[in-house]
Amino acid sequence: MKRSTTVLPLLALALGMPAIAQAETMFPLGQEADAALQKDELAWDFVEGITTEVGPRQAGTPDEARARVWAVEWLRRNGFADVREEPFTMPTWVRGEEKAEVIGAFAQPMHIAALGNSAATPVAGLTAEVVPFLSYADLEAAPAGSLTGKIAYIGHQMRVTQDGSGYSFAGPARWTGPGLAASKGAVATVIRSIGTENHRTPHTGTTSFPDGVQATPAGALSNPDADNLERMLARSDGPLSMRLLLTPRWIGDTQSGNVTAEITGTNPSLPAVLLACHLDSWDLGTGAVDDASGCGIIAAAALHIARTQQPLRTIRILFAGAEEVGVHGGRAYASAHADRPVFVALESDFGADRIWRLDSNFADSNPDLHARLTRAVARFGVAGSREVATGGADIGIARDQKAGIIDLQQDGTRYFDLHHTPDDTLDKVDPVQLRQNVAVWTQVVAVLANEPPQITRQP
Amino acid sequence: MKRSTTVLPLLALALGMPAIAQAETMFPLGQEADAALQKDELAWDFVEGITTEVGPRQAGTPDEARARVWAVEWLRRNGFADVREEPFTMPTWVRGEEKAEVIGAFAQPMHIAALGNSAATPVAGLTAEVVPFLSYADLEAAPAGSLTGKIAYIGHQMRVTQDGSGYSFAGPARWTGPGLAASKGAVATVIRSIGTENHRTPHTGTTSFPDGVQATPAGALSNPDADNLERMLARSDGPLSMRLLLTPRWIGDTQSGNVTAEITGTNPSLPAVLLACHLDSWDLGTGAVDDASGCGIIAAAALHIARTQQPLRTIRILFAGAEEVGVHGGRAYASAHADRPVFVALESDFGADRIWRLDSNFADSNPDLHARLTRAVARFGVAGSREVATGGADIGIARDQKAGIIDLQQDGTRYFDLHHTPDDTLDKVDPVQLRQNVAVWTQVVAVLANEPPQITRQP
Repeated sequence: MKRSTTVLPLLALALGMPAIAQAETMFPLGQEADAALQKDELAWDFVEGITTEVGPRQAGTPDEARARVWAVEWLRRNGFADVREEPFTMPTWVRGEEKAEVIGAFAQPMHIAALGNSAATPVAGLTAEVVPFLSYADLEAAPAGSLTGKIAYIGHQMRVTQDGSGYSFAGPARWTGPGLAASKGAVATVIRSIGTENHRTPHTGTTSFPDGVQATPAGALSNPDADNLERMLARSDGPLSMRLLLTPRWIGDTQSGNVTAEITGTNPSLPAVLLACHLDSWDLGTGAVDDASGCGIIAAAALHIARTQQPLRTIRILFAGAEEVGVHGGRAYASAHADRPVFVALESDFGADRIWRLDSNFADSNPDLHARLTRAVARFGVAGSREVATGGADIGIARDQKAGIIDLQQDGTRYFDLHHTPDDTLDKVDPVQLRQNVAVWTQVVAVLANEPPQITRQP
Repeated sequence: MKRSTTVLPLLALALGMPAIAQAETMFPLGQEADAALQKDELAWDFVEGITTEVGPRQAGTPDEARARVWAVEWLRRNGFADVREEPFTMPTWVRGEEKAEVIGAFAQPMHIAALGNSAATPVAGLTAEVVPFLSYADLEAAPAGSLTGKIAYIGHQMRVTQDGSGYSFAGPARWTGPGLAASKGAVATVIRSIGTENHRTPHTGTTSFPDGVQATPAGALSNPDADNLERMLARSDGPLSMRLLLTPRWIGDTQSGNVTAEITGTNPSLPAVLLACHLDSWDLGTGAVDDASGCGIIAAAALHIARTQQPLRTIRILFAGAEEVGVHGGRAYASAHADRPVFVALESDFGADRIWRLDSNFADSNPDLHARLTRAVARFGVAGSREVATGGADIGIARDQKAGIIDLQQDGTRYFDLHHTPDDTLDKVDPVQLRQNVAVWTQVVAVLANEPPQITRQP
């Protein structure tokens, strides 16, 4: 627009800003990124398709295998090259029955979901007194042996943060809380869901038990149930008891696998741009935001580029298997492709809400590229930053190689309302924000895939 | 405030409005109602207490019996007179296991809740082809016998309405849809939940089968599951099948009951003001908005009046039992107290959100009382209306007697997000809006209970 191209440089001079006039035409495939913002349908097609035709796809199960078949077909149909399944095996844990109830004067049922790697209760259930800890620190402070025969309750509450940092704060209650409680004698652990909403939909996710500590039953209550339990504890004259029935089991080593594909560059000998997401989901929901959206976003961006012009560098797609249960796919990929150099890797695994910040790990070593990328995404409402990108779980290969990493930070305000719950369904995906993701990815990957110089490796 | 008392009458004259200056001092207990708006704690105490210490309290079960004991104790402790349990018996249906899954190419599990009065499937489940009807009218148009051996799906979607009228539009899919489908040969019916939110929390509620039509299994899918099923139907090349497992059962005649209490008036021979709510809840949630809030609101209002001055007329409290499963308590009360005249009856059974309109059935016959009540609640953000109040389910006695009825219309925008779901829990109650309810009820009941003339009966 005429007015902005004449007025903006003057304004920029007056305010001491760098001149960024005509930004829209400065970047490779800028028009395609703009078009994606308005009318991308590829990402939605992927997310709607896999959530409807496959649904939940827990790692190591036949559902995840169906998802691989479905994804391979989708990638081939849409024109990706070298589409492959790369299978691996892993030990697989599956959910069974799950019931929890408070017994005694305030008796009522509670909504619970077993945590991944939880042990089973006896088939008749397990009844014990509840010992509450409203923070992880309180549990840490409990004396050795003090929980013998008891159910530990950890009510370490998560709050909303845009950047997801609330997960780092609250996550330990799930990740290591049950193991810590078991090490002090607890026969089971019940946690408040690591989640930020107030629905009767508990949040699952893995927990782990330290070496030498026998796994115990471990489950998450929904937040309204955790609230209710805490009120009961406050109102009860004496100890409160719960009965738990959790019957998950290990079904042995089963097959999982990655799905890989590429848009072959004009110079395939150059290190590739690696785009990752994960194909598996937890079993409770249909994995719409975690992480069908991520796969839809990265695939759509690669296709917008490929359909416009062949990029200089190859764009590699990794739909990782078995992320949720221990990043098995990311490790398998890093191992299988260790000799395949990565130029820059990026992962989308934080839902489908808008991208608000671009971080890289090469702002110091390659300031020009970092600055160009930052300018390239500004028109989509994305800020630059000096934070150092560390990458998602499945791009360990980039960390191994000390390659470039970019984090396109998404708004996490709603993410932990849905994360690992039955409520992770298609209706939670905002098509407008999904398209903003595709636009930003299209722009960033178009710059990277047409960038001749190599990233200076990090120390 | 000086300014309003001088300016308002002039404004009123200028605009042709009646002079309403100094409204706050014109009505009995106006100050107490104002105080309730700021600091009522009685309603919250009731709602928190019963949802925490009793929880779900389905009609005819031991949980409902515990709720009666709890309520009697609460009413006595807070100073009500003549607190009684009034038992009755009724046939009782209870939920069993419930599972639903789509089978075949798009196989995935769905969240379902059996509808009250649903028959059970065989214990091994029931598998059949799904015949979809996206509206009730489409089901009505299906030829006789056309559903033989099939599962009918009714996707008659409810939309949000402030006044709850969406329930009248969508409700028939649940109330009579399964019976209609059964009359055309369906072996089971699955409906889209009669609800306005998108969580994996199905909405239960009763259905009924016409005379001569054998009850079939009937359940409601959560809205995200209904969306998913409809997408599958659109994407599927051939028919789609579901497997249902629903094992509800009738446990025979069991005891339910009403709880009644009163604030005795200075002239107990005058017809009483009757305030009603229901004590039972559906089994899935803790019945916080349906209808612990209603009971908390009416009891709190009566207490604010009693603690200020003894009213002229007796204020009767009816915590009805077994409303959800067929208004057994309301009918039992009407029958047991037929000889006890009602002056005006009011019921609170639409959640805990703010009251926005006052309707009565005596605006024509007693326009002065109607106008005074309308003026009395204006300062709480409540509008008057010419709609004719018809009263809630449990005040049939007022309809039988052609007595006065007032409907204090609550904002129903959120109500059908929660109605009959596991998500009906305390955290959904907004304490600010709950207090507005108590303030309005305190004001209205204070006017009514100190009103000497009788209502002119309706024709």
